[in-house]
Amino acid sequence: MSNVRSVDHIGVAVGDLEAAIRTYRALGLEGGEIEELPDQGLRLAFFKVGESRVELLASTDPASAIGRFLASRGEGIHHLALRVPDAAAALARAVDAGLRAIDQRPRAGAGGARVAFLHPKGLHGVLVEFVERAEGEGH
Amino acid sequence: MSNVRSVDHIGVAVGDLEAAIRTYRALGLEGGEIEELPDQGLRLAFFKVGESRVELLASTDPASAIGRFLASRGEGIHHLALRVPDAAAALARAVDAGLRAIDQRPRAGAGGARVAFLHPKGLHGVLVEFVERAEGEGH
Repeated sequence: MSNVRSVDHIGVAVGDLEAAIRTYRALGLEGGEIEELPDQGLRLAFFKVGESRVELLASTDPASAIGRFLASRGEGIHHLALRVPDAAAALARAVDAGLRAIDQRPRAGAGGARVAFLHPKGLHGVLVEFVERAEGEGH
Repeated sequence: MSNVRSVDHIGVAVGDLEAAIRTYRALGLEGGEIEELPDQGLRLAFFKVGESRVELLASTDPASAIGRFLASRGEGIHHLALRVPDAAAALARAVDAGLRAIDQRPRAGAGGARVAFLHPKGLHGVLVEFVERAEGEGH
């Protein structure tokens, strides 16, 4: 059994959240409810796609991670989140294998998840997030 | 029921396919068998992740789509493939909604799939591929 269970979500940085929601509905995706995370300078919208989600991320603060990404790279896929049974174990395994961690240990994510990010430099340009959720939680 | 069933795969452009396979195995992914597509100037490797796949794409031809992407953007996520029951219907619906198609009609993809790409300019920087597969085919 793989250590990675599924693609939890794909994060897409967008400039105009409402316009992006209309666009992704035009693609055939369902959902798009908006969540406001003012403490993180973020507004986001989720679309359920099978066992995964597409997560649109808009910035309300140019100094936030998404604000800086948009300023330097423009709109596009921001990160790939992989669902794992144990984020601490997945992080330890990755670091032992020589990958570079952004988070030295898992931290609290949205909805009770435990999350940890790995650095894109060691992952061929892909910002990867490990996500651990309680069974039945999330989607 | 959504028109989009699942994330079929996430395509990642990489420079050194063998090194990338080692890296993604270190992440905990299983698989990484190599396929050679010399006609397309492509070498690729698949990892199964739940109902989806991560697809590593390396170029053997600088003039190929992946070769040009690597030259202009560097390594990173190249496209998001969404599995749909009917690629022609999904494409028609997206074009009717104002999205820009790269393929005017679905074409043959790997393993008997029907595929069609939409332009990232209309999709907030994301190159989206619709993938239609026969039931039970693929993964």
